Amino acid sequence: MSEKNSLLDAFKQTSYQVAGHGKREIQILKEAFQAIDGELESDIYGKGKIIEDFQDKMAAYLGKEKAVFFPSGTMAQQIALRIWCDEKGIRKVAYHPLCHLEIHEEDGLKELHHIESVLLADESRVIELADVIGMEEEVSCLLLELPQREIGGQLPEYETLEQISSHCREKGIKLHLDGARLLEIVPYYNKTAAEICSLFDSVYVSVYKGIGGIAGAILAGDQDFTEESKVWKRRHGGDLISLYPYIISADYYFDQRSHKMVQYYENAKELAEFFNSCHRVSTMPLLPVSNMFHVHFHATKEQVESILIEVYETTSVGLTSYLRETSEGACNYEVSIGDQYANLTKEKVNQVFRLLDERMRGLSLGNMG
Amino acid sequence: MSEKNSLLDAFKQTSYQVAGHGKREIQILKEAFQAIDGELESDIYGKGKIIEDFQDKMAAYLGKEKAVFFPSGTMAQQIALRIWCDEKGIRKVAYHPLCHLEIHEEDGLKELHHIESVLLADESRVIELADVIGMEEEVSCLLLELPQREIGGQLPEYETLEQISSHCREKGIKLHLDGARLLEIVPYYNKTAAEICSLFDSVYVSVYKGIGGIAGAILAGDQDFTEESKVWKRRHGGDLISLYPYIISADYYFDQRSHKMVQYYENAKELAEFFNSCHRVSTMPLLPVSNMFHVHFHATKEQVESILIEVYETTSVGLTSYLRETSEGACNYEVSIGDQYANLTKEKVNQVFRLLDERMRGLSLGNMG
Repeated sequence: MSEKNSLLDAFKQTSYQVAGHGKREIQILKEAFQAIDGELESDIYGKGKIIEDFQDKMAAYLGKEKAVFFPSGTMAQQIALRIWCDEKGIRKVAYHPLCHLEIHEEDGLKELHHIESVLLADESRVIELADVIGMEEEVSCLLLELPQREIGGQLPEYETLEQISSHCREKGIKLHLDGARLLEIVPYYNKTAAEICSLFDSVYVSVYKGIGGIAGAILAGDQDFTEESKVWKRRHGGDLISLYPYIISADYYFDQRSHKMVQYYENAKELAEFFNSCHRVSTMPLLPVSNMFHVHFHATKEQVESILIEVYETTSVGLTSYLRETSEGACNYEVSIGDQYANLTKEKVNQVFRLLDERMRGLSLGNMG
Repeated sequence: MSEKNSLLDAFKQTSYQVAGHGKREIQILKEAFQAIDGELESDIYGKGKIIEDFQDKMAAYLGKEKAVFFPSGTMAQQIALRIWCDEKGIRKVAYHPLCHLEIHEEDGLKELHHIESVLLADESRVIELADVIGMEEEVSCLLLELPQREIGGQLPEYETLEQISSHCREKGIKLHLDGARLLEIVPYYNKTAAEICSLFDSVYVSVYKGIGGIAGAILAGDQDFTEESKVWKRRHGGDLISLYPYIISADYYFDQRSHKMVQYYENAKELAEFFNSCHRVSTMPLLPVSNMFHVHFHATKEQVESILIEVYETTSVGLTSYLRETSEGACNYEVSIGDQYANLTKEKVNQVFRLLDERMRGLSLGNMG
């Protein structure tokens, strides 16, 4: 068995996990459907009470005229950008180099929609006003991802967002929000979701990140935009006869968790402080601005794996199931706080970090030189 | 309230329905999940036991090397045709004028994949060997829909399929099966699904027609083809983090119903005979070759609606919730036999058709002249 499998195995055997809402298992669906009347009629190709009610609820929450439920954010966002490109007649959009569309979608935007991307900022930081003003190419749309997931969930200042929004409106550039984790940033900005969304022409929100549903996404905007998005949804093969398994669970967990984002955010800050107090460990960002951050270990993947396995076996608390090697002698992983953190006693957390710090410190004296 | 709503309302109030498996309601999901262990882990982006086991099962059933679960047939089929077009370097495919891709998908094939269609045969009949041999343009792929749904579910002779398949192999044209209702034609051809599929390079099957799942589709072929289809599935936004709500229900209802296709086929033939014995009513095809057919009324939509409402109210048996006007003084609807037909006694059926015949006959003496 490889080292990697050992970490995963050790993680699976822990009684407590620090991050997330819990395992992605069938019970998530069963719980959401438990109280639902079996005679409730399915949505049919985007119509019917189940889908329309949830779309209305999310439109209101996001402060947009209309919202449309999609099977995935990948589909919703490509479509949003396509609509804005068709409207302006320029097949070019701007976004961050680590944008989901650039690195996780097999180039669907390019292969299916023939839309080019202009990359702003760089892989270490978020897009700032100067990046937008300094953009040399003409684009139809600018996509901002809040928080910028691949760099640990960083955010620009709210004032920057307002300035970028004003600039785009002046220049006739549509502004699209990749709000996969929009709910999760509401506490930091201390604005309502609708206030944040008012800076954008179109908004995508995931229903299975902080909300913890099964799959699916919401795309919101004005009615012309959302009607057009439904045509593209059919073209993409996303206008399923029944989307209710995702909608009912999204609705159920939205009600369970949308008010808990402050708790997750506070937990994330506390947990990051624990990590930052350990030798050879730091978080990105140092002070989280949402429920998420990255944990960077300044030691080899093999060294950290063996330390984590010891921590899991000793405390029965699991931190992560995987590590990514980032460079020679460094590795990291991603944390997103959910319901599970609240199940840990302060005593347990202290025990975990005392041991982690001790072992990471031990590396300095040993084979790390 | 319009006449159309009255027919729907009267249909909804009947105790028995002649066609289908029953209402599309949440109970379909609840039943499928009832016996499933809550601790079973979700599929994750196309991986995991739930999705892999079902894909293997369907690949074996269809006699293909591999199968991939898709959220929709729309997505699966566009992707199949795209792969064959890319392989041959010709963005042109041939299919029937009433092909799903031509009339129900908002031109996704053209808008997303820039693939042109060459239409074979005409709206009254299926594609025959002569249509394929006589094709003047060079195409990458020929799609055959079995049965041809929009003309009542018609089929070519099996020998014709074999001849078309041989011809395509000779000419280097890929042959794709739109087998949305493949299981439903197995009894008529008296071949296994795998035997039928062996004539085709790629095969799509729906899991919510005869099988009666919630949504979803299978795309099968050799491994190179299915691996490529997964890349496109991600590009389309169909590689959802969790597809298990559709997979578990597809698997459950496949096991419940795949062996009942002979029953549905026999029921369809019996029911068509009842319709054809009525004045001013005929079925297309006259003798069904699957579980489906169209019922044509040679009277105005308004006349037939009022007769059907009387039939529903008198017998508490519902035939259809809608009628489509096909021309001046004619209308039709589609029947697909499922589990519900078996709940009707012969006596009930006789009562329905005695009354229907009497009322349709009455039109001849009255205002139809």
